[in-house]
Amino acid sequence: MKVAVSRKEHFNAAHRLFNPVWSDEKNLRVFGKCSNPNYHGHNYELIVTLTGEPDPETGYVYDMKVLSDLIRDHVTSKFDHKNLNLDSLHFQNLNPTAENIAIVIWNILRPLIDAKHSLHVRLFETERNIVDYPAA
Amino acid sequence: MKVAVSRKEHFNAAHRLFNPVWSDEKNLRVFGKCSNPNYHGHNYELIVTLTGEPDPETGYVYDMKVLSDLIRDHVTSKFDHKNLNLDSLHFQNLNPTAENIAIVIWNILRPLIDAKHSLHVRLFETERNIVDYPAA
Amino acid sequence: MKVAVSRKEHFNAAHRLFNPVWSDEKNLRVFGKCSNPNYHGHNYELIVTLTGEPDPETGYVYDMKVLSDLIRDHVTSKFDHKNLNLDSLHFQNLNPTAENIAIVIWNILRPLIDAKHSLHVRLFETERNIVDYPAA
Amino acid sequence: MKVAVSRKEHFNAAHRLFNPVWSDEKNLRVFGKCSNPNYHGHNYELIVTLTGEPDPETGYVYDMKVLSDLIRDHVTSKFDHKNLNLDSLHFQNLNPTAENIAIVIWNILRPLIDAKHSLHVRLFETERNIVDYPAA
Amino acid sequence: MKVAVSRKEHFNAAHRLFNPVWSDEKNLRVFGKCSNPNYHGHNYELIVTLTGEPDPETGYVYDMKVLSDLIRDHVTSKFDHKNLNLDSLHFQNLNPTAENIAIVIWNILRPLIDAKHSLHVRLFETERNIVDYPAA
Amino acid sequence: MKVAVSRKEHFNAAHRLFNPVWSDEKNLRVFGKCSNPNYHGHNYELIVTLTGEPDPETGYVYDMKVLSDLIRDHVTSKFDHKNLNLDSLHFQNLNPTAENIAIVIWNILRPLIDAKHSLHVRLFETERNIVDYPAA
Repeated sequence: MKVAVSRKEHFNAAHRLFNPVWSDEKNLRVFGKCSNPNYHGHNYELIVTLTGEPDPETGYVYDMKVLSDLIRDHVTSKFDHKNLNLDSLHFQNLNPTAENIAIVIWNILRPLIDAKHSLHVRLFETERNIVDYPAA
Repeated sequence: MKVAVSRKEHFNAAHRLFNPVWSDEKNLRVFGKCSNPNYHGHNYELIVTLTGEPDPETGYVYDMKVLSDLIRDHVTSKFDHKNLNLDSLHFQNLNPTAENIAIVIWNILRPLIDAKHSLHVRLFETERNIVDYPAA
Repeated sequence: MKVAVSRKEHFNAAHRLFNPVWSDEKNLRVFGKCSNPNYHGHNYELIVTLTGEPDPETGYVYDMKVLSDLIRDHVTSKFDHKNLNLDSLHFQNLNPTAENIAIVIWNILRPLIDAKHSLHVRLFETERNIVDYPAA
Repeated sequence: MKVAVSRKEHFNAAHRLFNPVWSDEKNLRVFGKCSNPNYHGHNYELIVTLTGEPDPETGYVYDMKVLSDLIRDHVTSKFDHKNLNLDSLHFQNLNPTAENIAIVIWNILRPLIDAKHSLHVRLFETERNIVDYPAA
Repeated sequence: MKVAVSRKEHFNAAHRLFNPVWSDEKNLRVFGKCSNPNYHGHNYELIVTLTGEPDPETGYVYDMKVLSDLIRDHVTSKFDHKNLNLDSLHFQNLNPTAENIAIVIWNILRPLIDAKHSLHVRLFETERNIVDYPAA
Repeated sequence: MKVAVSRKEHFNAAHRLFNPVWSDEKNLRVFGKCSNPNYHGHNYELIVTLTGEPDPETGYVYDMKVLSDLIRDHVTSKFDHKNLNLDSLHFQNLNPTAENIAIVIWNILRPLIDAKHSLHVRLFETERNIVDYPAA
């Protein structure tokens, strides 16, 4: 049986939900206050999980310090104190919903981690809005 | 791969654990202080999870505001500030253990959500007692 | 300068808010869903704080294990898994609002703790409703 | 002795720290990533505390439901899903630091609450950055 | 469909990460500050999950009080306020990484619980370092 | 009126409670399992609070980033992943109770912060054991 190891990191960012193909009225109707043209923001909490077998010499599935550095270098340093819509290439043509942010983070991290480890991303947009990718 | 979206809501309710077929002695022996005839209560925290694919136009698996309203209209407004044993038809012949409350909530919500979305309920009776339905 | 030491304990109880002098209509108007005749309940979190100077031999202001036992023996064992209105003499003629529960707990504990220690009680009725007695 | 009652609410907002009298270089040097011109954001948690004596008829210092509505109507509905710099008159000439947001909230609420109740505001900008006004 | 029930317990312990086959230099290079020869420590939070079907007479998958006692008698009473490297036979030849502690706890509990219940262990070493065994 | 700003940091450390003047029996009788000769440990959460008036140019009472760096450089880097009894000069002749750790931290920080700011330290040894220095 395998073991999963998870590391929790965070970033604070602004965003707005918006579909450029739609009218302002439709954006407001669908996204409500989340489509405020001047943006709003969140303290995002991110949990990244890797699955594998503990190395017999270290007892580690994956060094948590290395995992933390990987997440900081490639994800949170890019998103922290940024406007996701304006400051990130990832969301130039992609609505920064929690679902899409989680998928983007998974896509950033997947090539950086050995394929023998399965990868999972959980993102808390707020304490009450949570997404998981991939779904269990 | 699919994405899971979760919404956390809460309700405060009274209950007692009790099997009407058993003697008071047996209820006390099996359920201990949880069978206090005058009831006790909890701040229940409820997490409802839906699985699906993000809609390409919205980036949503499911509108969290709609999910929140659904849970409030059909679950928490029925249970909040209520006595589960006395005020809810669901527990007239069913012991309101955390397990059974989670199953009841799942059964209430399942017909209200499109079958293409899988549904999961997590219920915290306390910070230390948690149930999931269905089990992973 | 003095040091304050705090111990957090919890109890789960049922209650209703109710003034027996008032009509049912007035109780409902004033207390809303909190006056449900069949009760509702909460996971109460209780923080008891004592102030004093560390004993030079132990480095303790007050032994936290002793404080924990004191709270459990005299407070939480009396209230846990109980109906505050029906099962506690303290609330026979006193409405069990969070304010009054905090005052009752303070009055129970005050004679049990040496007068050289000041005493403070914080009670979380929910994560969002909090009382302190005495106020700072 | 008085009792303090506290109600916790939240809002999600974008902001940037910025002094318009300074050069961009100085803003960046002083405020660092918090001065990102495209804004960032937070899930703000707000705790409002009132002090007073429990009313003998209700056992309430202040009806928590009334306090919650007051905070929602006058504070969180104004700030939630907004850009504090652009969408709020309060910060047109005031830098929206956590300190200044707390003072603004206190100034909004003070005239709405009877002077017999002292008023205190605690604001969590993040789990790790907290301000209190007035200081104890 | 089955239901999962989870009970959260905790223990406070000291440990160091160390491979006795390696030089001090290699231990320091691999484990960093976690290999401090004088140990460091954590407040471990442990969540034990069992899966099964609710008993029709009790509504319980497993009595949470019995599960709590089982965890306390066989796990937390052995590890709480102990040095995992020095005070526990389990780690005499096994590095007490979070991964290995979770596996040891699973191996202790598995024979004590009826095979009809699947068993899962989640261990928080800190709020930000989490392991699951078995991985989902 | 003044504003208080607080910054939360953490460190993980081992310790034992022990009075070298006493016999082993007396240490065990007074400190119980906290006197385990092989040490145990905690995830300490530290909140440092400064009081002052917001600077009119910045809106800051104190730059939280500067406060965070100060705490990390002078406190948590000294205590994190250390054995408080063996690795810190501060506790060579002082029992590392939560009370004494808080006082030591206050004494380290006080000379580093301008006297116009009052200073307060809150330390969580566990979620349930908390100390404040100075007491309010």
